Order: sequence, then structure tokens, then C-alpha cells
Amino acid sequence: MTNQMTNRKQTNHKHKTPVTVLGLGAMGRALAGAFLKAGHPTTVWNRTPGKGDGLVARGAVRTATAAEAVRASDVVVVCLYDYEVSRAVLGPIAADLAGRVLVNLTSDTPERSREAAAWAAEQGIAYLDGAILVPVTVIGTADALLFHSGPRAVYERHEGTLKVLGGNTVYLGEDHGLAAVYDNALLDFFWTSMSGLVHAFALAGADGVKGSELAPYLSALLSIFPPAIESTAVEVDSGEYPGEEAPLATEAVNVDHIIHASAHRGLDVGALSGIKAVLDRAIAKGHGADGWTATIEAVRGVR
Amino acid sequence: MTNQMTNRKQTNHKHKTPVTVLGLGAMGRALAGAFLKAGHPTTVWNRTPGKGDGLVARGAVRTATAAEAVRASDVVVVCLYDYEVSRAVLGPIAADLAGRVLVNLTSDTPERSREAAAWAAEQGIAYLDGAILVPVTVIGTADALLFHSGPRAVYERHEGTLKVLGGNTVYLGEDHGLAAVYDNALLDFFWTSMSGLVHAFALAGADGVKGSELAPYLSALLSIFPPAIESTAVEVDSGEYPGEEAPLATEAVNVDHIIHASAHRGLDVGALSGIKAVLDRAIAKGHGADGWTATIEAVRGVR
Repeated sequence: MTNQMTNRKQTNHKHKTPVTVLGLGAMGRALAGAFLKAGHPTTVWNRTPGKGDGLVARGAVRTATAAEAVRASDVVVVCLYDYEVSRAVLGPIAADLAGRVLVNLTSDTPERSREAAAWAAEQGIAYLDGAILVPVTVIGTADALLFHSGPRAVYERHEGTLKVLGGNTVYLGEDHGLAAVYDNALLDFFWTSMSGLVHAFALAGADGVKGSELAPYLSALLSIFPPAIESTAVEVDSGEYPGEEAPLATEAVNVDHIIHASAHRGLDVGALSGIKAVLDRAIAKGHGADGWTATIEAVRGVR
Repeated sequence: MTNQMTNRKQTNHKHKTPVTVLGLGAMGRALAGAFLKAGHPTTVWNRTPGKGDGLVARGAVRTATAAEAVRASDVVVVCLYDYEVSRAVLGPIAADLAGRVLVNLTSDTPERSREAAAWAAEQGIAYLDGAILVPVTVIGTADALLFHSGPRAVYERHEGTLKVLGGNTVYLGEDHGLAAVYDNALLDFFWTSMSGLVHAFALAGADGVKGSELAPYLSALLSIFPPAIESTAVEVDSGEYPGEEAPLATEAVNVDHIIHASAHRGLDVGALSGIKAVLDRAIAKGHGADGWTATIEAVRGVR
């Protein structure tokens, strides 16, 4: 124990890549904190002043302007509200960023990431686009999942520094949009599921069933999810949707019961109606005897 | 081994309650098959003839009319398309059902179950309303989850017979609607989640990501689900929705990104738009700094 503590104190900061973090919201502060903890010389900046006192107390250098902050480090990590803000902050300091590595962890669409990458290429900025898949409290731990996409050589040169933010950091490919693609897809599944979860509690709650009474059955249901993800992936990739056990036509009737029961209780049915419309279109396209994955044929090609 | 086989052959059918199964769709056949396997004298009937040959070969008695089938047993299990069909079948044979136990496993809304219970009470029929939560292949196993609601005394008298259909058979309470309430709520969560799953594959697939590439991350994400169910249940019951880590206002921005990315790829955004509308209403009601569970306040009271 004592040896470990001594070792930590003796960490040689000169061997760690200097890093700048732009944006000190809750996530930006967590990122800068992880770099500090790992011994990286860390410079921080925020649009509105007064943020990051805790980081300064722990050894971070806070600058008055974004340009100053950027000039302090070879690696610049950005975590702002969205790409509109990101553009407003980075646009005026393009010359300062030139020749450095810009790692944008701001959440947005793949299109925004690709636009930002095109802009960075014009400015001579090495650009990685990333996505953070975990809450602030998990940043800096071995479990933290982060995605990166962009030039492989740039990622590999800085992988050690980037893994300070999360042990489970994954490089997805050269297409700068990939981090946002994976991020959006995972959040699509997660938030849609959480929406169904809250709706389920509301539906049962309307008839006097407590959350604590329903929860054990919802949890038990989760045992079907891993095989469902596996089989859905196989079906999506093969384009074949066997429906022997639970054909779409039957499930559409079940979803209709849920919509009726919900509406009868004065509950919102917006999401469920959207799901039912997709089911109905898939059935109209001839997938009534297929399984649930066949709904992908009605999700696609709406435009 | 030999002893076990001999024992099985010697099962005394006279000690088992005779059971009638009305409706020989895939689920009805599975139910009748489970009763046969457990040694119950089993009578079967289907609206359209020609179904149940396999059951007859295994010893079931098939009758020409529902009335005959009902008169053969004290316990009558019904598994039909919906309650409209159920009413059409049971209405004319009310006199034959009188004094017997009717167990309706047809899926529908809680309202339909309660209506059926009121009708059964008028006719002097002991009535249990049930719901089957597992696919046909799981029927008759120790894991099979079935719910029952209605008079406790009736359930307890026939619990042994009902558990033939599934080892995980649960009695929920006197309110006949409860089995459908739990069933609808669980399917609400499940199908909404599966809808999000398929949409996630479609979204990533539009940018060339294969199902097999995305699946491992979707599976990893499942580790958040059990604690999310637990914490959501606690928040629903307490009416408090702390949102420090992920306030609704932030998540609404993320959902908006997913909607934009989806629409840009020509994907359906019906369900996501429904989810976003609930988020917006919850934020408008002052829950922007609360957590996701606060959306329940916007799910409720729409009427």
C-alpha cells in the first residue's frame, strides 16, 4: 500500500502527452479529471467562466481563451453541447488547431461528424470523432465504453492517452461517422426500451399494480433479450425472418390490445401507435407469417 | 432409468382431474399436449375441424361440439384468438359450463377479462382468467410463466392441474383483470424494446454496419437493464425522479439526434417521434432536470 502510494506520487508527468479539454460541463470535467488522475499535463477551458475550480485545484491549467488552451497541447479533446456549439468554438481557432490532434467527443449525428472531419481536413487538423457511452461517474474506469472513428494511424498513436478515459475504448474504422452511428444505434435501442419500461409501469400502475410488484417479472423477462439480440442480428444479416413461434400477425393483435388498454386508461399511445403502424406496413408487405425482425422491411425505405 | 420409465407407464389417470381444452391453435395444442403428458384425461375441440390429430393419437378425446367437450370435464381451459371469438364460442354453451371451472387463457385487455368474469358469475361458472407469457415450445416446462387471476379458492383447488402447463405459474389476485394487466405491461416493455432493437439494426445498417458487428455492443448494454428496472420501479413508487447523471433535457437532445439521423436515412421515425413528444411534454411540465422516469408524468393523463 505505502509503496503504491509512493509510486503514484512519483508519476513522471513529463512522459505523458499534454492534453487540452474544451468544454467543462459535467462530462468535460470528468474527462479532464481522468487525464489529471493519470498524470497528463492538462489544460482546460470553458465558454462561460467559473467552471473547473476543482480541476485547477488538482493541477489543471485554466486559460482565458480557447486559442491559448489549444496551443498548450498536442491533443485537444472537445466535449460541448452539440456540433453547432462545437463549430462556433473551433471555427475561429482553426489556425491554432492546425497540426494538432482534435478528438471531438460531442454527441450528434454521423452527418455532423463527417462535416466536421471534412472541415478539419481542410484546416490541416488530424481529426478523430468519438462517442461516450457511459455516464460521467464511469469515466476513467476499466469498464467505460468509448468509440472512436477516423484515421487509424492517428488513433493508434494516441490510443494510450485515449484509453485513460475508458478501458473499454474501441476503434471502429476510418469513416469519421462510425462512432456516432454506433452511439445513435445503441441509444436508439436503449431509450426506446426505457420508454417501453416506463410505459409498462404506467399501464400496470393504472390498475393499482406497484412498480415493486411488476419489476421482478420485467427483470425475469430480460433473460429473453440476449438470445433475441443474437437471433435478430442473424436475421437482419440474412434477410430471413422465420416466424413459426410468434408470427407478426399474432403480435400485431397483442400490440393492439396494449394500445386499447393504454388508451382506455388515458395513457399516451404515441410510441405504441408508431410501432403498430410499422407492424401493419410489414404485414401489408406480406410479412404476416414472418417473425418480428421482418418489421425492418417496414422501418426502411419510408422516404 | 428403467424404474422411472415403468413408473411413468403406471401413472394412474383416474387420479388426475379430467380437463377439456377448447381451441387447438398452436398454443391450444401445446396446452392439451402438456395435460396429456401429465396423465390428465383430456378432451379437445376446435371450431374448424381437422385439428388435433396428433393429440388424438396420444389419447385425447376429440368431440364434434364444444358442449360435448365441456361436459366431459370439471376444468375447461380456453385458448382462442381473442375475447370476441371466446364469447361466440362460450355464449351458447353457458348452461353446460355452469358449475364447472372455466380457465380462459385467451389474450386480450383487462376490460375484456372483467366483462367475461361478470358474465361467468351470472351463469354460475367458476372463472379464472389467465395469461401465457411464454412461446408454445416452453409450455409444460418448469420455466413456463403463466399468470392467473380470479377467486383464490378456485385457483388453489386447481393449482396442481394448472401448474402442469408451467412450473412458474403465479396467482396474482382476486381482480380477474390482473393477469391481462401484467401480461399487457410485460409485452408493452418487451415489444417496445424489440421495436427499438430492430430500429437500431436498421439505423446502423444504413451506414454499412452489419448486425453481427453491432450485436456485441447491444448485448453489453443489457448490463444496465437490471439496475434500470430496479431504480425505475423505486422512482415510480416514490414519485421522485432524480436526474443528476442524465437529465431529461440532455436525453431529449440525444433522442433528437437519433430521429434526425433516422429520417436522413429514410427510416421510419414514428415510434421515436412518439417518445420525443412524451419527453417534450415532460420537460414542458418542469421535469427537464429530472431523470427518464419523470416521463411517466407525461405518459399519464393524456385523455
